[in-house]
Amino acid sequence: MDVKDLFKDIKKYEGKSVTLEGWVRNNRNQSNFGFIDFNDGTYFQSLQLVYEKDNKQFDEISKVRVGSAIKVTGKIVKSEGSGQSHEMKIDSFELMGDSADDYPIQPKRHTREFLRDMAYLRPRTNLFNAVFRVRSVAAHAIHEYFQSNNYVYFHSPILTAADCEGSNQMFKATTFDLNEVPKDKDGKIDYSKDLFGHEVYITGSGQLHGETFALAYKKIYTFGPTMRTEKSNTKTHANEFWMIEPEIAFCDLNGIMDIEEDMLKYIIKYVMDKCPLEIDFFDKFVEKGLKDKLNKVLTSKFERITHHEAIDLLKKAKVKWEFEPDYKEDIAKEHEKYITEYFNGPVFITDWPKDIKAWYMRLNDDNETVAAVDLEVPGSGELIGGSQREERLEVLEELMQKHGVDKSKVDWYVNTRRFGGCYHAGFGLGFERLIMYLTGIENIRDVIPFPRTPNNCDY
Amino acid sequence: MDVKDLFKDIKKYEGKSVTLEGWVRNNRNQSNFGFIDFNDGTYFQSLQLVYEKDNKQFDEISKVRVGSAIKVTGKIVKSEGSGQSHEMKIDSFELMGDSADDYPIQPKRHTREFLRDMAYLRPRTNLFNAVFRVRSVAAHAIHEYFQSNNYVYFHSPILTAADCEGSNQMFKATTFDLNEVPKDKDGKIDYSKDLFGHEVYITGSGQLHGETFALAYKKIYTFGPTMRTEKSNTKTHANEFWMIEPEIAFCDLNGIMDIEEDMLKYIIKYVMDKCPLEIDFFDKFVEKGLKDKLNKVLTSKFERITHHEAIDLLKKAKVKWEFEPDYKEDIAKEHEKYITEYFNGPVFITDWPKDIKAWYMRLNDDNETVAAVDLEVPGSGELIGGSQREERLEVLEELMQKHGVDKSKVDWYVNTRRFGGCYHAGFGLGFERLIMYLTGIENIRDVIPFPRTPNNCDY
Repeated sequence: MDVKDLFKDIKKYEGKSVTLEGWVRNNRNQSNFGFIDFNDGTYFQSLQLVYEKDNKQFDEISKVRVGSAIKVTGKIVKSEGSGQSHEMKIDSFELMGDSADDYPIQPKRHTREFLRDMAYLRPRTNLFNAVFRVRSVAAHAIHEYFQSNNYVYFHSPILTAADCEGSNQMFKATTFDLNEVPKDKDGKIDYSKDLFGHEVYITGSGQLHGETFALAYKKIYTFGPTMRTEKSNTKTHANEFWMIEPEIAFCDLNGIMDIEEDMLKYIIKYVMDKCPLEIDFFDKFVEKGLKDKLNKVLTSKFERITHHEAIDLLKKAKVKWEFEPDYKEDIAKEHEKYITEYFNGPVFITDWPKDIKAWYMRLNDDNETVAAVDLEVPGSGELIGGSQREERLEVLEELMQKHGVDKSKVDWYVNTRRFGGCYHAGFGLGFERLIMYLTGIENIRDVIPFPRTPNNCDY
Repeated sequence: MDVKDLFKDIKKYEGKSVTLEGWVRNNRNQSNFGFIDFNDGTYFQSLQLVYEKDNKQFDEISKVRVGSAIKVTGKIVKSEGSGQSHEMKIDSFELMGDSADDYPIQPKRHTREFLRDMAYLRPRTNLFNAVFRVRSVAAHAIHEYFQSNNYVYFHSPILTAADCEGSNQMFKATTFDLNEVPKDKDGKIDYSKDLFGHEVYITGSGQLHGETFALAYKKIYTFGPTMRTEKSNTKTHANEFWMIEPEIAFCDLNGIMDIEEDMLKYIIKYVMDKCPLEIDFFDKFVEKGLKDKLNKVLTSKFERITHHEAIDLLKKAKVKWEFEPDYKEDIAKEHEKYITEYFNGPVFITDWPKDIKAWYMRLNDDNETVAAVDLEVPGSGELIGGSQREERLEVLEELMQKHGVDKSKVDWYVNTRRFGGCYHAGFGLGFERLIMYLTGIENIRDVIPFPRTPNNCDY
């Protein structure tokens, strides 16, 4: 049975014998008795196993090394020690997989940097075990939220010929031997010899494809991996990450703000309900005050201000900025921080200068700003970016021309504006940013099972 | 409101006025009245809208073209016509997005080949609307199944340096300009100038990484996209597809057969419960007898035979085979068909000759076969492939050497056998194969939103 099911109903098992399989986190013994911290990975908390001298396998059990896989049968009893309510008295024991002496995950504190170098073993520690379970549960929360609200889960393609997001940020995918890229008689790459017959990229966003499906299903969401070639070695950038990109027809900017707020509260509540031990652990050891922060979000109404109002606020602030706030510019990290602290909670900033935003965002009547919205959260900055999409064909074509987007590569996208294209909006949620926000973990490398960053694609 | 919510409880809305937004599937009118087939994509069934001469927008509504996005307010009433129980009498109407005269999805029968060329519009047809909703619901069924059984959803990396699956079947991912791949002084590719500092592939399977997490969480599953470079133009191959790869520690071959059977029944039941109209539609227009087929699976016990027994059976059969059955060989499509028809239901075939299976599969005591299992289903052939993994370090190393696997590239994987590596097993379910099985659709291109096959990566 799973330790999770045992703990869920542990009183029921009092006095009963159960069989468990899992791993030894620690093994402490004296001449007459010993304790094993036993964890099978299905539950955050370890179970204490007790063995005594009268057990005929006492010597064998005493020698079991940390990290070993074992099978144990024994009675669940109330614990006399402190620290746990119940424990198991081992009746029979079997070593299922030994652990070598050089096993690196010993029962002591390891730094996150040390563990990052052994990504394949770190989920066996309390911290990472908690992180990746929260990641799993949060993913499910997202599916639950959208499915129960009539959304269709849309698998956006990973390989794409649409490079309009900026192909300089996209990986190329090819079947060529890079030693001998075939050339035609003019010395140009002969893509007819590649699998798809032309250049192909790994997508950096499923939005454009998602829009076409939103114009059939009204409400769709993507949830899949995305890759970008940014050579950026910061705590918040990875070259491979997962994104959620909902797209909703008949929805405007206010509509997506409502959805974002509702969704975020749903996910937070879901994770706090399903992972209380993990959240307690993060609150204690990773980000003090995490639970208060999350609980406050649940009961707060997110603030909504325009970019112009945000700049007003920043200009009025008695702060010496590294970057001077500007009505025509993006806002810097220091500004995000000030604004979320000022409002003491999540803040939507809307209606951004058109020149610093993407070509598909809907132009406002002022001709200067677009109907875009970023959600800023305390501690993490920008968590979600979204916009209403430009549904007016002539305006879209003008914007594309201004931004230098090659229309011939996305004629299908443009066509949707001719075929029942209505007002619609969508947003992108970086899944790793969300996990960092939920756990308090500060480095994106610590919330991705096998992170990919510049010069780091081992495994 | 969503049409889905309206239909869910339509009697409640009788006599009430509601506002809906969606698209015109058809608009038929005579001099005094007209009907619009209205669909907002949230529900398979269209709603009939009625408008009459006394409506002051009558002329405007009469001219609305197929494909247009509209907003309507009106009363829900019992329908006097046949074909539907209720309809809406339009009170007010607004055109939200016009549809041009060359809109290709007209209210008539289009071939699947025709629609394949307009992948971005085909979800607006009944068939594809049903297919991609079933795809979404089946995906959620999979998450529900594994999450409710204590599995952790594991995001396996897409970019990988582990090419042991056979890098000739994997795409290369690079940031290089393929016109000028940088070379070092020896004329070799200078990977130090690429983002990761070495060659990188797009993964063809998350299994190896999944195993490392199964040895921490006991039960994990992946669900993500996979890419392979096969130049194969068949109905069942695509170069980009989604896979589910569960991996379970302390689980043997019989264990994964139990899980596969349980999971498959769960998914089928879930989809039949949530998408009854879609399944009826497929049963009627795509695969006659589909519902019977699926219902039968729910109540049947899957057969379990060894590869040896399967060959016995095939040899005894009074059939003239194109490929002669052989104890040392794979079984052909014709054999799969015979076997599933013979047992009249799904069949697990176990214990395959070691030389035709992958290097990580556990060697049986006979030294000739491995603990692998394929699930064959009537009509679709192989749906799931799985195996117990070789957990014995020395045996694994021997198998790797025989198969020519470069150990240095997967030392982390091998290491897990030294660090509490226990017996474990897993399987891979091709998501598209599953959707084909659930819908009766015969071509994989018709169950992927934007399919990628050789010379076909548009959009």
